[in-house]
Amino acid sequence: MPPKRRLSHVATDGSARMVDVGGKPVTCRTAAAEAWLTVGGQVAAELRRKGGLAKGNVFETARLAGILAAKETSRLIPMCHPIPLDWIEVEVESRGSRVRILVHAKGTAKTGVEMEAMTAAAVAALTVYDMVKSAGKGIEIGPVRLLEKTGGKSGRWVRP
Amino acid sequence: MPPKRRLSHVATDGSARMVDVGGKPVTCRTAAAEAWLTVGGQVAAELRRKGGLAKGNVFETARLAGILAAKETSRLIPMCHPIPLDWIEVEVESRGSRVRILVHAKGTAKTGVEMEAMTAAAVAALTVYDMVKSAGKGIEIGPVRLLEKTGGKSGRWVRP
Amino acid sequence: MPPKRRLSHVATDGSARMVDVGGKPVTCRTAAAEAWLTVGGQVAAELRRKGGLAKGNVFETARLAGILAAKETSRLIPMCHPIPLDWIEVEVESRGSRVRILVHAKGTAKTGVEMEAMTAAAVAALTVYDMVKSAGKGIEIGPVRLLEKTGGKSGRWVRP
Amino acid sequence: MPPKRRLSHVATDGSARMVDVGGKPVTCRTAAAEAWLTVGGQVAAELRRKGGLAKGNVFETARLAGILAAKETSRLIPMCHPIPLDWIEVEVESRGSRVRILVHAKGTAKTGVEMEAMTAAAVAALTVYDMVKSAGKGIEIGPVRLLEKTGGKSGRWVRP
Amino acid sequence: MPPKRRLSHVATDGSARMVDVGGKPVTCRTAAAEAWLTVGGQVAAELRRKGGLAKGNVFETARLAGILAAKETSRLIPMCHPIPLDWIEVEVESRGSRVRILVHAKGTAKTGVEMEAMTAAAVAALTVYDMVKSAGKGIEIGPVRLLEKTGGKSGRWVRP
Amino acid sequence: MPPKRRLSHVATDGSARMVDVGGKPVTCRTAAAEAWLTVGGQVAAELRRKGGLAKGNVFETARLAGILAAKETSRLIPMCHPIPLDWIEVEVESRGSRVRILVHAKGTAKTGVEMEAMTAAAVAALTVYDMVKSAGKGIEIGPVRLLEKTGGKSGRWVRP
Repeated sequence: MPPKRRLSHVATDGSARMVDVGGKPVTCRTAAAEAWLTVGGQVAAELRRKGGLAKGNVFETARLAGILAAKETSRLIPMCHPIPLDWIEVEVESRGSRVRILVHAKGTAKTGVEMEAMTAAAVAALTVYDMVKSAGKGIEIGPVRLLEKTGGKSGRWVRP
Repeated sequence: MPPKRRLSHVATDGSARMVDVGGKPVTCRTAAAEAWLTVGGQVAAELRRKGGLAKGNVFETARLAGILAAKETSRLIPMCHPIPLDWIEVEVESRGSRVRILVHAKGTAKTGVEMEAMTAAAVAALTVYDMVKSAGKGIEIGPVRLLEKTGGKSGRWVRP
Repeated sequence: MPPKRRLSHVATDGSARMVDVGGKPVTCRTAAAEAWLTVGGQVAAELRRKGGLAKGNVFETARLAGILAAKETSRLIPMCHPIPLDWIEVEVESRGSRVRILVHAKGTAKTGVEMEAMTAAAVAALTVYDMVKSAGKGIEIGPVRLLEKTGGKSGRWVRP
Repeated sequence: MPPKRRLSHVATDGSARMVDVGGKPVTCRTAAAEAWLTVGGQVAAELRRKGGLAKGNVFETARLAGILAAKETSRLIPMCHPIPLDWIEVEVESRGSRVRILVHAKGTAKTGVEMEAMTAAAVAALTVYDMVKSAGKGIEIGPVRLLEKTGGKSGRWVRP
Repeated sequence: MPPKRRLSHVATDGSARMVDVGGKPVTCRTAAAEAWLTVGGQVAAELRRKGGLAKGNVFETARLAGILAAKETSRLIPMCHPIPLDWIEVEVESRGSRVRILVHAKGTAKTGVEMEAMTAAAVAALTVYDMVKSAGKGIEIGPVRLLEKTGGKSGRWVRP
Repeated sequence: MPPKRRLSHVATDGSARMVDVGGKPVTCRTAAAEAWLTVGGQVAAELRRKGGLAKGNVFETARLAGILAAKETSRLIPMCHPIPLDWIEVEVESRGSRVRILVHAKGTAKTGVEMEAMTAAAVAALTVYDMVKSAGKGIEIGPVRLLEKTGGKSGRWVRP
């Protein structure tokens, strides 16, 4: 396979470009992505001390920020196509000293919805970070990564 | 220190809230954040094979997406205040099989610019991911983290 | 009918959610909504004293704000799906001491356009309010309500 | 008082205009606004049947939508000035067969924050409407109205 | 042909309106537009003195701003319909003392993509202007104009 | 004068950059810009045939689109700073077979408002174009240019 086909967003003259999806069929696409935050034991304990309410609201705020961000994807990521999304689901849960965000995206479009899932996951993580950062600046976001992708010519992909 | 002071964005009744900065003085604020992508040796080589041009354009696209995203911070992160930014600088470089994004933000405001730096770093990373994902879905973003912060009551903080 | 089916945007675990419209057929949808402002006799007289021009421009500004707001619906209302609108029409007229805004929305989509009509009506009303508020802070907006809805599985609904 | 002074957003030639605030001093401004929804006994009972959780999440979603909308005010209302907000607080509570949204806005600016409070209240109400509309299309929004305003040349105003 | 049919965005009562495209078929649409800047010999020389890099980055910034602006068209131009774009391509090149921006847009929609092409061209030109204005305020943008249009009932049009 | 100082938005390594305005004083800034459309005699006559109403509404729509676009400047033009505008005024008039848009912008900021004036002028022109394009695709926009600028270190500039 020639190298030039690999980076689909880079033209042969090296300039960044939007992929022309005009000839692609409209199919059902799904994607799942996750984002993790290492908040540390102190913040995790703080979230627990507050009871379900505080955590619930921090997490609910993150969920909504993720859903809204998914709808902003083509405005944030320059080469993304605007696509009508069928569904975005964002789940947030604490796991020990970490917080995990899991996003499912679905769309009926000429191009995939993985950037929508990735963007929702990243912005939800930034939102959790914003709300707990006063309790510890050392918090880190990562990894943010794709878990699964279906639809389109390349078919199903699942993270090994 | 009472727990309720730690999570400044959570009210005593547990609801998420915006911090009232009405009484805070306007001071000069800076923040630096970084985001890493593990793109793998194949993509890194691909970027190198293209010469500086392709990499330059992928990275230039990411830089601009980061700068624009910084200006969207208060619209993406629910509890962030809209602040007039003085400066955003985004640098992107490849380091072995990884890509590093470094963001500097500066503002003269009642509240800090760390979320602007973090958001710029995360969106620049998503943009690199978008442009190289055709060469390998296993790419991961992370860590995204604050490096330094100056200004405001809490003063200077540097990641240990 | 079980209660849990009634609030379609609330999951069984109580969390807010976006409805998955992936399996729904694309059909023609219409909606009509209205918003009223009680501006009081003084402002109404003021609008009349200015001749058609002032009223025309206040009302034209409101019409445009409503049309633009309809296109922002999925960005303002967290659980709304982004849909390509076919048509938005906003009419504004004064009726005695009140102003009435009437919106018609049309779209070919998997989900209805009632939120687009409601959002356009509300933002058009806010725009009239903004432009006449200097003449009397007692002005009130309301009711804002759906008048009619067609298309989709539930078919036609007309306000009794 | 000459009529032309009353509608500050209408020029003497009748065209809509933005007020020039260049010469105004920057002062602390606050505003409070409320929006009501008449959801009917059935939906109110439904919200209660779900327990605090469902209501909490519908209301939390509305709160966040209101906060985010306040930051969009100058983009939705054509003649509004972009202003850096210091604080937005949105409270949502059910009262019998109605839901009440109460918004407090604060800013340090040349112009008032009443449109920010009104816009937040209206969009929060639209969000509640969106999430409960499946349980009854007859729901109405209104009144949406200013309760109080402080700061600026005109000083304090409280709804009689 | 009666005059009233010519201005399709003006109703018979004179009010501005959005065209109802509900009954139009979805077809493939393309449009090409160009924008010119007269930057003068000094700025042109300056761009050349910097070598390909500076010009490349000014032009790459303009290209990205144009692509992003195309996706904002329906939010900037009040009577435009939101449409899912298949492709936007923006090319920027210097020609003597002028800079030329060439845009190609493609969409599968009920309405054409000429405003998307025109908007991308204009915003790319504004972006070049912004980045070189420090070297000479006398710079002018123009003409911005449609070059070609295909698809829809009116078929292909090419600028004579 | 060394070349590197001329293009203030290009770093010495050639990359596009945002100018750091952190150390600049906040001063009153104004800018005036104009945009012309050559609509041709046919469209001009059409606008006249409709009476003041049609022209008024096409022009009023363009005025509002220009005012709103000015507030979007920093989101459209990548290297622009977000600034709180004090005033935007857009005038539209027909002159023979041409339409002229005149914009005045005013702000109290660390950086000038010329891009706000230029962006408003360009988007107002695109809006007129959109509304009259059905009557003749040969319409051209241009020139779009700065007329005057005051405030800041460089002081007053008037187009010769």
